[in-house]
Amino acid sequence: MRILFLLFAMLSSLTMTAQQRFEPNWKSLDKRKTPSWFEDAKFGIFVHWGVYSVPAWAPNADNVYTRYAEWYWHRIIEGTHEGEEFLKFHKTMYGEKAKYQDFASLFNAELFNADQWASLFKRSGARYIVLTSKHHEGFTLWPSAESVNWNSVDIGPHRDICGELTDAVRLTGLKMGFYYSLYEWYHPLYRTDVNRYVAEHMLPQLKDLTERYKPEIIWTDGEWEQTDKTWRAEEFLSWLYNDSPVRKTVVVNDRWGRDTRGKHGSFYTTEYDLVHDDDAKNMTYTHPWEECRGIAGSFGFNRGENIEDYSTAKQLIEILIDKVSRGGNLLLNVGPTADGRIPVIMQERLLQIGKWLSVNGEAIYNSRQWNNMPQENRRQGVYYTVNANNTYALLTNTQKQTLYIKGVKNPTEISMLGYNKPISWHKTADGIKIEIPAISVEESPCDYAWVVKIISHEAK
Amino acid sequence: MRILFLLFAMLSSLTMTAQQRFEPNWKSLDKRKTPSWFEDAKFGIFVHWGVYSVPAWAPNADNVYTRYAEWYWHRIIEGTHEGEEFLKFHKTMYGEKAKYQDFASLFNAELFNADQWASLFKRSGARYIVLTSKHHEGFTLWPSAESVNWNSVDIGPHRDICGELTDAVRLTGLKMGFYYSLYEWYHPLYRTDVNRYVAEHMLPQLKDLTERYKPEIIWTDGEWEQTDKTWRAEEFLSWLYNDSPVRKTVVVNDRWGRDTRGKHGSFYTTEYDLVHDDDAKNMTYTHPWEECRGIAGSFGFNRGENIEDYSTAKQLIEILIDKVSRGGNLLLNVGPTADGRIPVIMQERLLQIGKWLSVNGEAIYNSRQWNNMPQENRRQGVYYTVNANNTYALLTNTQKQTLYIKGVKNPTEISMLGYNKPISWHKTADGIKIEIPAISVEESPCDYAWVVKIISHEAK
Amino acid sequence: MRILFLLFAMLSSLTMTAQQRFEPNWKSLDKRKTPSWFEDAKFGIFVHWGVYSVPAWAPNADNVYTRYAEWYWHRIIEGTHEGEEFLKFHKTMYGEKAKYQDFASLFNAELFNADQWASLFKRSGARYIVLTSKHHEGFTLWPSAESVNWNSVDIGPHRDICGELTDAVRLTGLKMGFYYSLYEWYHPLYRTDVNRYVAEHMLPQLKDLTERYKPEIIWTDGEWEQTDKTWRAEEFLSWLYNDSPVRKTVVVNDRWGRDTRGKHGSFYTTEYDLVHDDDAKNMTYTHPWEECRGIAGSFGFNRGENIEDYSTAKQLIEILIDKVSRGGNLLLNVGPTADGRIPVIMQERLLQIGKWLSVNGEAIYNSRQWNNMPQENRRQGVYYTVNANNTYALLTNTQKQTLYIKGVKNPTEISMLGYNKPISWHKTADGIKIEIPAISVEESPCDYAWVVKIISHEAK
Amino acid sequence: MRILFLLFAMLSSLTMTAQQRFEPNWKSLDKRKTPSWFEDAKFGIFVHWGVYSVPAWAPNADNVYTRYAEWYWHRIIEGTHEGEEFLKFHKTMYGEKAKYQDFASLFNAELFNADQWASLFKRSGARYIVLTSKHHEGFTLWPSAESVNWNSVDIGPHRDICGELTDAVRLTGLKMGFYYSLYEWYHPLYRTDVNRYVAEHMLPQLKDLTERYKPEIIWTDGEWEQTDKTWRAEEFLSWLYNDSPVRKTVVVNDRWGRDTRGKHGSFYTTEYDLVHDDDAKNMTYTHPWEECRGIAGSFGFNRGENIEDYSTAKQLIEILIDKVSRGGNLLLNVGPTADGRIPVIMQERLLQIGKWLSVNGEAIYNSRQWNNMPQENRRQGVYYTVNANNTYALLTNTQKQTLYIKGVKNPTEISMLGYNKPISWHKTADGIKIEIPAISVEESPCDYAWVVKIISHEAK
Repeated sequence: MRILFLLFAMLSSLTMTAQQRFEPNWKSLDKRKTPSWFEDAKFGIFVHWGVYSVPAWAPNADNVYTRYAEWYWHRIIEGTHEGEEFLKFHKTMYGEKAKYQDFASLFNAELFNADQWASLFKRSGARYIVLTSKHHEGFTLWPSAESVNWNSVDIGPHRDICGELTDAVRLTGLKMGFYYSLYEWYHPLYRTDVNRYVAEHMLPQLKDLTERYKPEIIWTDGEWEQTDKTWRAEEFLSWLYNDSPVRKTVVVNDRWGRDTRGKHGSFYTTEYDLVHDDDAKNMTYTHPWEECRGIAGSFGFNRGENIEDYSTAKQLIEILIDKVSRGGNLLLNVGPTADGRIPVIMQERLLQIGKWLSVNGEAIYNSRQWNNMPQENRRQGVYYTVNANNTYALLTNTQKQTLYIKGVKNPTEISMLGYNKPISWHKTADGIKIEIPAISVEESPCDYAWVVKIISHEAK
Repeated sequence: MRILFLLFAMLSSLTMTAQQRFEPNWKSLDKRKTPSWFEDAKFGIFVHWGVYSVPAWAPNADNVYTRYAEWYWHRIIEGTHEGEEFLKFHKTMYGEKAKYQDFASLFNAELFNADQWASLFKRSGARYIVLTSKHHEGFTLWPSAESVNWNSVDIGPHRDICGELTDAVRLTGLKMGFYYSLYEWYHPLYRTDVNRYVAEHMLPQLKDLTERYKPEIIWTDGEWEQTDKTWRAEEFLSWLYNDSPVRKTVVVNDRWGRDTRGKHGSFYTTEYDLVHDDDAKNMTYTHPWEECRGIAGSFGFNRGENIEDYSTAKQLIEILIDKVSRGGNLLLNVGPTADGRIPVIMQERLLQIGKWLSVNGEAIYNSRQWNNMPQENRRQGVYYTVNANNTYALLTNTQKQTLYIKGVKNPTEISMLGYNKPISWHKTADGIKIEIPAISVEESPCDYAWVVKIISHEAK
Repeated sequence: MRILFLLFAMLSSLTMTAQQRFEPNWKSLDKRKTPSWFEDAKFGIFVHWGVYSVPAWAPNADNVYTRYAEWYWHRIIEGTHEGEEFLKFHKTMYGEKAKYQDFASLFNAELFNADQWASLFKRSGARYIVLTSKHHEGFTLWPSAESVNWNSVDIGPHRDICGELTDAVRLTGLKMGFYYSLYEWYHPLYRTDVNRYVAEHMLPQLKDLTERYKPEIIWTDGEWEQTDKTWRAEEFLSWLYNDSPVRKTVVVNDRWGRDTRGKHGSFYTTEYDLVHDDDAKNMTYTHPWEECRGIAGSFGFNRGENIEDYSTAKQLIEILIDKVSRGGNLLLNVGPTADGRIPVIMQERLLQIGKWLSVNGEAIYNSRQWNNMPQENRRQGVYYTVNANNTYALLTNTQKQTLYIKGVKNPTEISMLGYNKPISWHKTADGIKIEIPAISVEESPCDYAWVVKIISHEAK
Repeated sequence: MRILFLLFAMLSSLTMTAQQRFEPNWKSLDKRKTPSWFEDAKFGIFVHWGVYSVPAWAPNADNVYTRYAEWYWHRIIEGTHEGEEFLKFHKTMYGEKAKYQDFASLFNAELFNADQWASLFKRSGARYIVLTSKHHEGFTLWPSAESVNWNSVDIGPHRDICGELTDAVRLTGLKMGFYYSLYEWYHPLYRTDVNRYVAEHMLPQLKDLTERYKPEIIWTDGEWEQTDKTWRAEEFLSWLYNDSPVRKTVVVNDRWGRDTRGKHGSFYTTEYDLVHDDDAKNMTYTHPWEECRGIAGSFGFNRGENIEDYSTAKQLIEILIDKVSRGGNLLLNVGPTADGRIPVIMQERLLQIGKWLSVNGEAIYNSRQWNNMPQENRRQGVYYTVNANNTYALLTNTQKQTLYIKGVKNPTEISMLGYNKPISWHKTADGIKIEIPAISVEESPCDYAWVVKIISHEAK
């Protein structure tokens, strides 16, 4: 009996491997289905933390990129117009001789408590975390053998940030992932011999990260200066999909070379509604995708940002709804301080979202874009998702209104999430008509947005 | 003509002075009427900033006093049970040899922008500011000649914080005041010869502060170890009321000696609902008074406080309403960081209050306690104030309800502030009966609390 | 018997006190005889240590005053030509926002070991120590109640430097004294009300120093901007001579007001051969006096000084001989580093002098100027001192030579200190003629200078 | 004519190359003759400078190795008895959380002036310099692409120390070399995969150093944990001797693997008279060799060392003489401070040696061991060298004495270097007899040691 079982196991293992084996080319790799957990998760938290969290500053500029505090090092060196304000700040605050690398020993993380962070993330309703294991500065938040004395164990925090956070996040049931910058602004190998950089530095780091922490998301960036061939992206991904310990569950984004965004990867990405430099505000992908952005304008903590620069809970929830209604995820960023705290205003925003999701989560998690969604509704602040047999209308205002919806199949029951009173509705020739009542403050199940759930006999 | 005018001016000046002269004893001093601006103002902002903003830490303790981060220095030295956690933190973070005074050069205030602060305070709806010109540590935020090299111009920020903030606050039309600690934990003169300390250190500082910046509030503290005689409080106040440049407008609190709280001063004080160590939660003074507290549990910025430690906007607004309905003011504290920022969560709270006041301010500013206020209403979350001929019912929930109010004289008109629809009401035998409608989310004029205004033919 | 003795003791004590009482005017004060220990001691060590030991820098300038690293604070502020190089250094090294006071927390003295210092001083042959208890910067090396948080116990070293060094020095049998600057560059009281400064700050400090540590030398400085009346010097000195615990043994220098140098005080002072701005190289006082100077050009440690800037042992020993032959003392300065070390080159110089004195001390200690000293000899590098019945010729070269000396009375025996062989000599009409032999390297008792001792039947 | 000459040059160049080609094995490599400049130079200066110059401390221990301040990092981590005092110091001074790598940003070198150093070295009489390009800590003093952000250009000094010093040293005509540690205590590749470490880290660094700065000495260390095979030493040296830009002039020491000391390399090394752990005090190699040691007991600057720990000039000159008389060189170490100064006591020692060499250099430079040297003379403090036709007797005391020397061939003339008077001598049966006169202090040409020069008709 036992022998038979073993034989069966071996066979099925072989079969599975045979079925799932990917070749190191996009044609093959693109055939891999994005593990569904990712599209089901909908809401993740991005964490930008590094040496840039020490100066923690960017000017209040119009250009969204100029407001990225995590670009501090590059800004003070690049000598461009964008860098002028950074450089002025740097000279005034730290003196002309101060260099960026000297900040590393001030990145102390002395109040960092991974369990506290994880608990907060859990309560925010997020389902996954993406931590900057290494940003363009090259400083790694784990003891990378390829980044000796320029990592968080050797200098500064003297702790394995990636490891501590991974452990804590997993304990809460969330999924853990890593941001990883392919290029490094000032790595000498990168600047002199990119092929050796890829072979001796980048690929070993990516594999080390993968094998050591078994992340379920690998979120690359800094890909734009090279082609996917140079980065040997296909080769890495085939290993990741075939042989890595996370081959079954891992998802990767689309930043694998100069020309890969929106083309390859488990999910596509937008950033502050932009895809590369194109406006993506009205984009709808059929492929899984994810919008990332900060709670304020910077990813790395920016001490120069005040309340005016922070999005309100209502704005963030509308962004979440909008992206989900288009089939996307939202990866919302927090920027911890150099001493290891998540600024309290960010904690507040995460909990505001978490509270809203605790009422309305079924319209978000596991949902998909509703293909019949009427565009005129979106303009009125009404969005739709579907989940199993249900269609959800997410209203970003509560004013008493009549809602006509075409295309809902076989509706049988309609209610508002968290709201006990019946909703009046009836079928029309080509859809349904719902009378949204005026919700009183006291009876309102939540703030910011309200969800009407339409149960049908059969799925979309 | 002109000569006559001048003559008149001189005479009236003489007369006024003659009329207002106060002798250096409480009996006389207590006759001075509290300038009405103070009671009209209702809402002020307290700012605790000093060398303690560098370690910026206190444990999460049950005892409210143990949570005061501004007591850091005392805690690490006093050797009491309360100090143990502080000391452990200190040793771990800074090493055994580190001393508190060495923090001074790290108190850099490099991002401090007085105009930004003042603008925020203005938008919060506050009408006055009280800045810690000197806390128990003795470090002065102005260039005090009695605190050489232990003040913000000589060391650390290298700026006249008191001066810069006073100028900026005045430009916005708010009133400026100073907190000032009578005692200093470790001043050698204080510990060896308190009389010389008072004569050569404390009184010169108080006069310097007064003459230099002309504050409209002098908010003393640290009085408890000595009597008012030792502090020479009466002498100072008689000078302040008779001869100082702010003699007409200044208000002072009640902390002038071991036995003066609740007895003397332009206004009495409570602190986290305590008067000395008695519970003052249900206290109602007939004398002007003021409650002070932090947005979270500490006055000085405490890096250890998270969102759970911060009061919500709703809680803060209810505290404001409660205090005002009892005739008091609220002095709400913010604790800036050592680099000069007001934490964004505190900015958010101030603006949430400001937004609420922009709708409901007429029930707060210039109002007074309504003597007929029914206590059972308070228990239901309904508070009252009066202002001119109007009585205001402040409801901390909006549920549809019927409100019976006894004792309102000659009501003629009833409305909800910021709400356009009519409110249904009628007189009863001994008062009025109001039908509070269910306010819909969309029509609600504000969050957190709603105000019913009752206009009468004549005043209370 | 015993009773009689006690009675006698009491009476003589009374008498002595009665005899020694000094009035607070120079006429009376100048009558006090300088305690002979001072003139007997001849060689003392000056220690300049303070916040200036942190930047520890001055340019290599021609003007001796510009090379004083202890003037750093004043130089970067004064805006004169002399300060330009200091300011350039300061901006480059510390940035434009750095202020002098911020250096205090970097003055750590972590390696300071008073016993080690005292042992070194003892071995140098010095007989007294003068430590900068307070330089013009106002920072005190003891816990002065008049300099709160600007003293070595409150900030920086967190140790009582004056106390520790006094205890250690006394254990070795040397005398302890303090340098004390009357003025302070930036003390606000000094700048606004010098009389209060003197009454409330300076005099209390001087008395505190005296009573606390019982120094046998009070070495004032920074006197030049005010008269002795303003400084209340006569009043202080009458207290010091009449009522202080060191009234019998203390000596003071001559820097007590704009016009007192070379006129009043237990001893007069020169500094790098200058008296005020006059050249004092060839000065001979009949009053006790003392030359002070550094081993290199600065008093406070100057990191910019290299071996070329340091005097050689030979130069220092010649200076000592020259000053002693003129009746003066030498107060040779060492400038410790901010971490508490005496630079090893200074240790070497002190021990080189000590080794020389161990052979030749009898020509130095307790000696006096020889009034008959022939000036042409000085030009040839031959100096004289007398001690009891002996006359000493100190030769700064050893070349074989014939020495004619006029005016030696009744010589009976002639030898070279530390040298066993006989010296050939005979009397001449008006003195003696000595044949100095060529001393071989192996037989030479010492380096740098050699002493011929002439014993007479009777004293000079 | 010219054409013929060129042809000849080309041919001889080809021939030479052909002749000089070395195979990557010791048998072949050992055939390379040590370039004679090295044996001619005799005196070099070692410079230990790195991150260890920041804590700059070691205890005063008996064991010479324990006194090495440059081992600080290893000591505080290794947990051995030897490390205990280091760890105690570290915790007291820097706190328990402080890590070694955080010192890097405090290694500022702000006063480093390569020309000043080079000028000092030149005046010391040294003929070559060996700078720690990288010690066991792995921190490189040049912008090594294999040590990103752990080198002096990226962090700390932000300067190319190797480059600046090489340029300055070459300008003075001295030869430049580098110390380089093969192993690194905490490099992860070294600890996990030494072969990859050698291939990807060590060899690239050694080649980079060689090609970038063209050093004439490569002075390896840290070889003892691995064999020469593991380090691929033979392979590197064959490249160095055959193909590197310094193939004609470079010398290397003998530290290329666990078993190579005293066996392979251009010169053998001793260290504080030890070879590995054997006493080498009386060692005489026939192969070129070099003793290295500090002026005091540590190589890296040790703040804990006082004058007692420093060798005197006389001691150092005797060591130089002793080593040269045995055919060796002396590599004398200086340890600069973290701010870039060579401590003045070290400057003094170097100049004392330089002054002595300016008189007696011909007995040192270009000299060789005298094979006939009588060992009894050495015991009397008399040493010998030969140089061309001359034999030199170096006397470390000057006492009048008769010197018998056997084995000098055909002496014709005898004199004392720097001394004008004739020296009396005559031939004996088996050598010569010299009457050393008593040298007077004034006539002595130098201090510390004196040289008798014996000119012969023909060479040894």
